[in-house]
Amino acid sequence: MSDSFLSSKLIENISQKISTQKDKPGLYAVATPIGNIFDISFRAIHILRKSKIIFAEDTRNSRKLLDFYEIDRPLVACHEYNETLPQVVNQIHQNEYYSLISDAGTPCISDPGYRLINWCIEHNVAKG
Amino acid sequence: MSDSFLSSKLIENISQKISTQKDKPGLYAVATPIGNIFDISFRAIHILRKSKIIFAEDTRNSRKLLDFYEIDRPLVACHEYNETLPQVVNQIHQNEYYSLISDAGTPCISDPGYRLINWCIEHNVAKG
Repeated sequence: MSDSFLSSKLIENISQKISTQKDKPGLYAVATPIGNIFDISFRAIHILRKSKIIFAEDTRNSRKLLDFYEIDRPLVACHEYNETLPQVVNQIHQNEYYSLISDAGTPCISDPGYRLINWCIEHNVAKG
Repeated sequence: MSDSFLSSKLIENISQKISTQKDKPGLYAVATPIGNIFDISFRAIHILRKSKIIFAEDTRNSRKLLDFYEIDRPLVACHEYNETLPQVVNQIHQNEYYSLISDAGTPCISDPGYRLINWCIEHNVAKG
């Protein structure tokens, strides 16, 4: 058994502080690792866990990441090359959390997803 | 006491996998939070903890972040507006880990630090 990477005191500290943060509901564009599975932030995990639905470019790839970090939320495909947007936005409601992730990196930097973001901005449900 | 943000099984998994990663010694430019303390990755914490010295733009600001994440490494100021570079590079040796952090965000994107990075590239000690 290896030494614990994070002490129990630190985890307690993070758990307490992250759960009392003033997040706002909406759609979050969440950055995921590009090559190293540990290139993901505490806040990314926190927001993904709070999400009612996680929209992903490739649900098979993303499921591996979510499984590793024990994030048991529904994954829905949201890519450019088919007409999923109408079905996707039908599932979005105000006052809930949603995440958009791409295969790797930050959604919309060089990936699909901007149509969903645009829709959410127009409908006042897009967040940071 | 709040629910644990990360389960003990997940922490054990992260501890084991992150400690057996094939990192290479050198200088790492490590991204730190811009506004939310939880916007930091597991790998950032791992590399900061392995660093013989952490070079920082503002050591007082950075100390708060390092204290929160229980990173007990020497902090050395490395900013643009004085002539610290000769003293700084005197402390850098091959086959050791070093980190460069800025006040917030990724070093060198819009912060000082490029002179140290350049020196390390020339002397073959710069990394990702």
